[in-house]
Amino acid sequence: MKVVFLCGGAGKRMFPITEDKFLLKFLGRTLLEHQIEQALAAGLNDIVIVGNQQNIERLSEIVGKFSSTGIDLATQREPSGMAGALKSAQNLLEGEILVVNPSDVFEKSAYSAILKERKKESATSYILGAKVEKYFPGGYLIVNEKREIQHIVEKPERGERPSDVVNMVVHLHSDAQALFHCLEVESTRDDAYEQALEGMIKKGHKLKLVDYGDFWGPIKYPWHIFAVMEHFLGRSKGGIAKTAKISERATIEGDVIIDEGVTVLENAVIRGPCYIGKNSVIGNSVLIRDRSHIGENCVVGFSTEIKHSYIGDGCWFHRNYIGDSVIADRCSFGAGTITANLRFDEREVKIRSGDETIDTGLEKLGVIMGADSKTGINVSIMPGARIGPNSIVGSHVMLAHDLEPNRIILLDTQNKVIEMRVGSD
Amino acid sequence: MKVVFLCGGAGKRMFPITEDKFLLKFLGRTLLEHQIEQALAAGLNDIVIVGNQQNIERLSEIVGKFSSTGIDLATQREPSGMAGALKSAQNLLEGEILVVNPSDVFEKSAYSAILKERKKESATSYILGAKVEKYFPGGYLIVNEKREIQHIVEKPERGERPSDVVNMVVHLHSDAQALFHCLEVESTRDDAYEQALEGMIKKGHKLKLVDYGDFWGPIKYPWHIFAVMEHFLGRSKGGIAKTAKISERATIEGDVIIDEGVTVLENAVIRGPCYIGKNSVIGNSVLIRDRSHIGENCVVGFSTEIKHSYIGDGCWFHRNYIGDSVIADRCSFGAGTITANLRFDEREVKIRSGDETIDTGLEKLGVIMGADSKTGINVSIMPGARIGPNSIVGSHVMLAHDLEPNRIILLDTQNKVIEMRVGSD
Amino acid sequence: MKVVFLCGGAGKRMFPITEDKFLLKFLGRTLLEHQIEQALAAGLNDIVIVGNQQNIERLSEIVGKFSSTGIDLATQREPSGMAGALKSAQNLLEGEILVVNPSDVFEKSAYSAILKERKKESATSYILGAKVEKYFPGGYLIVNEKREIQHIVEKPERGERPSDVVNMVVHLHSDAQALFHCLEVESTRDDAYEQALEGMIKKGHKLKLVDYGDFWGPIKYPWHIFAVMEHFLGRSKGGIAKTAKISERATIEGDVIIDEGVTVLENAVIRGPCYIGKNSVIGNSVLIRDRSHIGENCVVGFSTEIKHSYIGDGCWFHRNYIGDSVIADRCSFGAGTITANLRFDEREVKIRSGDETIDTGLEKLGVIMGADSKTGINVSIMPGARIGPNSIVGSHVMLAHDLEPNRIILLDTQNKVIEMRVGSD
Repeated sequence: MKVVFLCGGAGKRMFPITEDKFLLKFLGRTLLEHQIEQALAAGLNDIVIVGNQQNIERLSEIVGKFSSTGIDLATQREPSGMAGALKSAQNLLEGEILVVNPSDVFEKSAYSAILKERKKESATSYILGAKVEKYFPGGYLIVNEKREIQHIVEKPERGERPSDVVNMVVHLHSDAQALFHCLEVESTRDDAYEQALEGMIKKGHKLKLVDYGDFWGPIKYPWHIFAVMEHFLGRSKGGIAKTAKISERATIEGDVIIDEGVTVLENAVIRGPCYIGKNSVIGNSVLIRDRSHIGENCVVGFSTEIKHSYIGDGCWFHRNYIGDSVIADRCSFGAGTITANLRFDEREVKIRSGDETIDTGLEKLGVIMGADSKTGINVSIMPGARIGPNSIVGSHVMLAHDLEPNRIILLDTQNKVIEMRVGSD
Repeated sequence: MKVVFLCGGAGKRMFPITEDKFLLKFLGRTLLEHQIEQALAAGLNDIVIVGNQQNIERLSEIVGKFSSTGIDLATQREPSGMAGALKSAQNLLEGEILVVNPSDVFEKSAYSAILKERKKESATSYILGAKVEKYFPGGYLIVNEKREIQHIVEKPERGERPSDVVNMVVHLHSDAQALFHCLEVESTRDDAYEQALEGMIKKGHKLKLVDYGDFWGPIKYPWHIFAVMEHFLGRSKGGIAKTAKISERATIEGDVIIDEGVTVLENAVIRGPCYIGKNSVIGNSVLIRDRSHIGENCVVGFSTEIKHSYIGDGCWFHRNYIGDSVIADRCSFGAGTITANLRFDEREVKIRSGDETIDTGLEKLGVIMGADSKTGINVSIMPGARIGPNSIVGSHVMLAHDLEPNRIILLDTQNKVIEMRVGSD
Repeated sequence: MKVVFLCGGAGKRMFPITEDKFLLKFLGRTLLEHQIEQALAAGLNDIVIVGNQQNIERLSEIVGKFSSTGIDLATQREPSGMAGALKSAQNLLEGEILVVNPSDVFEKSAYSAILKERKKESATSYILGAKVEKYFPGGYLIVNEKREIQHIVEKPERGERPSDVVNMVVHLHSDAQALFHCLEVESTRDDAYEQALEGMIKKGHKLKLVDYGDFWGPIKYPWHIFAVMEHFLGRSKGGIAKTAKISERATIEGDVIIDEGVTVLENAVIRGPCYIGKNSVIGNSVLIRDRSHIGENCVVGFSTEIKHSYIGDGCWFHRNYIGDSVIADRCSFGAGTITANLRFDEREVKIRSGDETIDTGLEKLGVIMGADSKTGINVSIMPGARIGPNSIVGSHVMLAHDLEPNRIILLDTQNKVIEMRVGSD
């Protein structure tokens, strides 16, 4: 059986996070590496990865780390969704295939459940489904009494979801040809793959729902990273690498993973579960708490507090409060920059994007910051603001809305707010 | 002899503190409880408390704590000052009565002085008087050479005080009937009780001044709470409750009282005299110093500094500097909110209230904050500002004046200041 | 041989630092004291100091500290540069004189080099020259193949310097009369002394260049103080005075000099090389690092961080970040005042002074603050701003430009910026 990891591009919904989701790093490795390991651990060692022209080099690097295993790489020519991705790898795929979206994080039990069902009952395809309590912007599965799928309803409006089982992209197709046959009929619509599944059903193929009840962490919006971060932190025991230097006056409490080359200075406190990536420096009087995940080569400077946040690689902090935030690689924060993470009325933080309002489902949400962005000193950022990438919030600015990529917002000498392109005069 | 505690409502001068003054808590108990205990300790165990319809339930609760003693409760129907209060309890009062305003804090020696004078010399009434160095907005006592009171001059203008002895409401009337007789004549004016005393004098009753020289802490304005706080802190020895959890890396120095269930985290420093109320959490790298008094269920978050301040119950702090401030219950402060407590010219902090200017007599005064008020992040509050109750200072705002109850002050995206009712759009 | 220290007034270029440069203190003593000691150590114990009417009293005090040595004082009547200074002391000077500008810091080897050259080779004068890599605003020496000086080119434009050797004012004149003869001819121009040297050359006197390659720290602009500070810190071993009180919970690392009467509180960290002057207090959770130099009687309050800065005497800090800054005596900083010390584009910090732009050659530069200046709370100061003396930056202000002496900049209730004279209404 071949496992097919579909490594298409990042969605618009991830703004301002531009990194492909499966390239986000957790505990020092990309999500894709975690996925490959998990598949191997489940005994699935025949793997095909379908990337695109932008990420194929990076994927190739990652595959290189698993040199002992045979992993095939294919490149999707056009960004035409799952259908296009599968077609691009068609020559590598025959017989049984297990189609997986590696940005949806799940437990190894997903594989055992689907493989068990395949042994137990004969069907053309086996579709993993997760029961959801609250509305989720995905495809909802409608089944008959035999748990055979009748319809897939893509992204219904909030309040109109036709079932409580959502399609997880862990799909076992016992006959790749049957799938490809239906895929060919379909247009290049974004949901062509789901349309093909509907086509298979119409043709009389049996698509069996496989119930899955363990952790499922799909990443559609940046704040979904929190659940995945918590998942990885939750299943890890703490440990301090031998090359890490921890001051005797620092306090490490609970399950804290401290990676190679990390320095923790005097009077710093890290209250786990937390992860500190390679060669990062945790400065004097710093507090890191509440399931925070810090990438490599970061400098968390004096008196900074990081609470329940995901921080990329190469970020610099100095006297900041970063709470419930997602910070991409190479961001830097001026002294006194503070993120607000709670509304005065303690209601759900909503994101306003033009006319659109996005519900986050979160009472606590700080900033979402794209790569290579910066803030000045004494900056205040309101809950749910999205910044960048490559943008700058000038000193002493209060930012209460999104800042587009490559933009700088500043105060003039009369305390007026000015916004312009980065680099213009 | 009956002690009568007059528990009328809070005065306008206490804005924005709306809690009745005798219900303010010190060292975990209300001022009234402290007063009852002190009276009992002085052997005065026949007590009548006169409350009003708003506070009678709360008073009843407090009385319940002294179940072994007989304390009578009476309810004043109209808010007509001390005279009305006494009239409401008239059926409970005969013979010798000792009328006490429990919001004026004094030492047990006040009781012994007045009782000693009663034994020594025969008079209708014994009036306790405190010598004051500076102007105080109270009633001034004019006496003859025999130290018999001739007149009581209520609130003279600053600079026109007719004596240096102020009327403390600890008054022993050996003949309650004589007092009530004069009270009946009087109108419902705010100072009807003092008028009745003048009436008694005119009728030939002898009102003897009893000199008092120990601590006297009348609470007329919110900042008078400081002296009372210092009094309670000053006469207490430090001590840590058995159920408190103090990190080995925390520093507790001097007389610090740490109540039950308190947590003190790593690198916190508490420099006494200070009081930390039940179940409060003192976070990492926090500094509490200079005679501060913190209520119960407070969270003093990371890197906060509290200096010479009175903090109510259920308050939240995060990276704040709170200096020389009075904070009522359930207030919360966004990260980076700082109180200024000193003018650039280091002159006395004055409060501007409409056209009126109130002298505080203090060179250092921070904020006075009513219950249930909040601030956002990076807020700057100027010396002597009064806020709320139930008001909000938005993020990044500099507040240089009072904020009325139920008001919110905000910055718009152009950095302009907007003020409106809390909850309006 | 007589050493002549020319102690004229501070230059305009030092704004807002008004203290005479040789009166700046390093490691607890003025630069002039260090110079006197160095001369004595080099065996030069016949010293003449030429001051002016403003500083003569202060100079007299300093001379008083060297009572065992004979140091003569002369007062320059008019502020007419080096020429005028020398003329004012003419009666004290004959035979061999060594003219030194004590604001240019150099090593003892400067003296040995010039004395050695005098022994080796006969000349009228010996002029010390320092090779400079980058443009420096001084006098450039043009020599012939015998290293005899042909011309001195004063302050050429950037990019037009005629040599890479700059005139250091350590000049040995073997015949004072020859110098004075030429000085008499010259006008009262600022560069009359250099003109006199040119005059000597024209008359056939031999002026020999003496090469100097060790540390040279001329102070022309305030940020030149950094190099001198680093020089003094670099050549000192750490040490803690017996009368200093260091908390067991404080961390002192590297070469830190802690002077008499200093207090260092819990959880403070000082990472040397650093100097802490007499009777200063380093508060809780303070960080001092990267070659910082703090004067006497300073209070570095809670949670302040001082990085690579020169701080005068009697300064107060509270929750500040002071980076790469020069702070004169008696300044005070409100809680939350932060100095930015790096541009977003990480280019050289430039100072705009009217139409003029001054290159600092520094990528990191914070604030330059004149004596007796203050800031309020939550103030943001942009890189390279110059303030005061005797000026005030009001609370919550972002200062992005210079503030003249005796000025206050404030926000009104509408968040508008107001600037006026200190003390006006």
